[in-house]
Amino acid sequence: MIAEQYKAMLQGKSVIRQLAEWSTARGAEIGYENVFDYSLGNPSVPCPAHFTEVCRRLLAEQEPVALHGYSPTLTLPAVRAAVADSLNRRFGMHYTKDHLFMTSGAAGALAHALRCVAVPGQKILTFAPFFPEYKPYVEGAGLTLSVVPPRCEDFQIDFAAAESLLDETTAAVLINTPNNPSGAAYSADTLERLAALLRRKSAEYGHHIFLISDEPYREIVFGGAAIQYPARFYEDTLTCYSFSKSLSLPGERIGYVAVNPACEDAEFIVPMCGQISRGTGHNCPASLIQLAVAECLDETSDLSVYETNMELIYAELKRLGFTVVKPGGTFYIFPKALEENAAAFCEKAKKYDLALVPGDSFGCPGYFRMAYCIDTDKVRRSFAALRAFVAAEYP
Amino acid sequence: MIAEQYKAMLQGKSVIRQLAEWSTARGAEIGYENVFDYSLGNPSVPCPAHFTEVCRRLLAEQEPVALHGYSPTLTLPAVRAAVADSLNRRFGMHYTKDHLFMTSGAAGALAHALRCVAVPGQKILTFAPFFPEYKPYVEGAGLTLSVVPPRCEDFQIDFAAAESLLDETTAAVLINTPNNPSGAAYSADTLERLAALLRRKSAEYGHHIFLISDEPYREIVFGGAAIQYPARFYEDTLTCYSFSKSLSLPGERIGYVAVNPACEDAEFIVPMCGQISRGTGHNCPASLIQLAVAECLDETSDLSVYETNMELIYAELKRLGFTVVKPGGTFYIFPKALEENAAAFCEKAKKYDLALVPGDSFGCPGYFRMAYCIDTDKVRRSFAALRAFVAAEYP
Repeated sequence: MIAEQYKAMLQGKSVIRQLAEWSTARGAEIGYENVFDYSLGNPSVPCPAHFTEVCRRLLAEQEPVALHGYSPTLTLPAVRAAVADSLNRRFGMHYTKDHLFMTSGAAGALAHALRCVAVPGQKILTFAPFFPEYKPYVEGAGLTLSVVPPRCEDFQIDFAAAESLLDETTAAVLINTPNNPSGAAYSADTLERLAALLRRKSAEYGHHIFLISDEPYREIVFGGAAIQYPARFYEDTLTCYSFSKSLSLPGERIGYVAVNPACEDAEFIVPMCGQISRGTGHNCPASLIQLAVAECLDETSDLSVYETNMELIYAELKRLGFTVVKPGGTFYIFPKALEENAAAFCEKAKKYDLALVPGDSFGCPGYFRMAYCIDTDKVRRSFAALRAFVAAEYP
Repeated sequence: MIAEQYKAMLQGKSVIRQLAEWSTARGAEIGYENVFDYSLGNPSVPCPAHFTEVCRRLLAEQEPVALHGYSPTLTLPAVRAAVADSLNRRFGMHYTKDHLFMTSGAAGALAHALRCVAVPGQKILTFAPFFPEYKPYVEGAGLTLSVVPPRCEDFQIDFAAAESLLDETTAAVLINTPNNPSGAAYSADTLERLAALLRRKSAEYGHHIFLISDEPYREIVFGGAAIQYPARFYEDTLTCYSFSKSLSLPGERIGYVAVNPACEDAEFIVPMCGQISRGTGHNCPASLIQLAVAECLDETSDLSVYETNMELIYAELKRLGFTVVKPGGTFYIFPKALEENAAAFCEKAKKYDLALVPGDSFGCPGYFRMAYCIDTDKVRRSFAALRAFVAAEYP
């Protein structure tokens, strides 16, 4: 008999995916170049040429039996060591390979991190607006997602609200900075206050509350700002990373968990990840991809287009009278809709061939997300549609 | 606080892994070429040159943004269609892409299949001897593994024992043919009898009992025998496959679940796999690897060395007086130890630089496994050690 739990999930289609399907269908009618598709967070710039070269060299020069052979349970040691070195160089950390576990992207990293520090029945606290997939990730581990309401003026943290939701059953706090969908990058002040709160509550409850920091947009920060590395602020931090955005490799499913050497039981966590993999069925990312990213750790794709697009869109939205926080990073912006019902707002936008995602599924009704990982030319061309939409529907 | 469940698992190290580590350590002392390492099932022949060529061509010719872009939730449609076509051609099935879901190897395939057709608390029936990882795979899905005792004369199925263990809580039966560790390939007669039993019991209990068929060794069959495809015998079958052995790509983590179009609710199962991935955190195998295997579906590595090795080892074991069933496939053989305690037997073998795995963790005490995916020359050289071991310890 098939499992009703998953069959039932088939009803609840992702709003983002549905909108992306609408964009594709509309594109078939009028030409996709005429659909202003701000739905999906799919990188629009190619990976560095060096990544391709490394793959081709590995394929040409390595013995296939070794190149494609099983990774050890804890993933390839040389790759783990290279990632540790890169993080140490960049953020002044003290990782060794024993603190690194390579995963199938950030989804894989979160699946492991959650199971390492929480047991079924416990609570994971996150902050609205949040990536909607956090719900299945957290619930898939038998945990409950508890959501702190958004601080809409700057999308930093509402600490009074966070404190009121933290309790003894809270195993970990899950943050995402820079943030999907708001584009907000947590300031040093926010991270310091969060660390202080978690230390105080850990002491009060007599157990360590972990910080799980999901950082796939770490390398996409704007205005030349310094990257704030959350594990620098709080010892009990598991950093979850994906190369999907920084190297434009979302389909290759490659990321990692980095365990702060100063965290509780730091030496056990990577071996535990190896055990967790046995139960969930993903034993290591692809070996070719592990080896290739290890040679591109301090590189990124040319990410400048995202900042260019952000500046154009932000200025246009302000001109049109939107309430909008200027993103500190990512390729998202999260303005307030022009009516209370963001779903209705986004539905009307479709008449103007604009694909905008309502904020409800991000835990932030009344707002909408634009993913501007698209050509700058298309961004520019979309403004006429945006103006027509606003003028006609919200005169 | 870290999760004690996984921390506790760190104690229970795999016997196979420990033995492999011993082989490596011993190799550092006397040269690895002098350690007769029959511990690990790691393919010893390279992938087809065509696979390497396809990877290099894809990297050279495809747009990186498309090549490395996100796969859809249900994995790449063209790849799924190609796998369906290949299985239809080879086994007379009627799959379409909607019955195929690409996974991270067989481990990923089993993780999805188990969750599709069983809910926490239910029982999965398998047959000794069995691959020890079935236990964490099954328990990781919240299920219980129930093991039918072995039929040691030929390692086919003891149907009386199977029937006595099947009950209303049994959601699925998990088979592995050709079998790790015994090398037995189930005969058409065995598969027909199994199908008849499952149909009768499904009717009796009023729910479909699924067959999960784990087939990573499908392409390694000996003596020119025809491959028996279990889904041909039983409609409610989910076939789990890995290219690890057939294409010698274990590190690339690529396989699939194939849903028999005639099974209960066939149209829901692949979409359910997409939902299951969200909770377990592995969203698709690497896109480059998906695309590359899709062009190599009807190929294999040169697998003939495994049969050569099998014939040599089987003859030598018979000469030395071992009780041993001749393998029908795989790169394993599973003889009876020369004393009741197979662990003690294998421990003594180490004195002769022979790495043999005791059968206890395979659910078959008193036997031992030899993985002969090694050079034929080494197989030949190992016989002096084997003879010395038997002569000295079991005169």
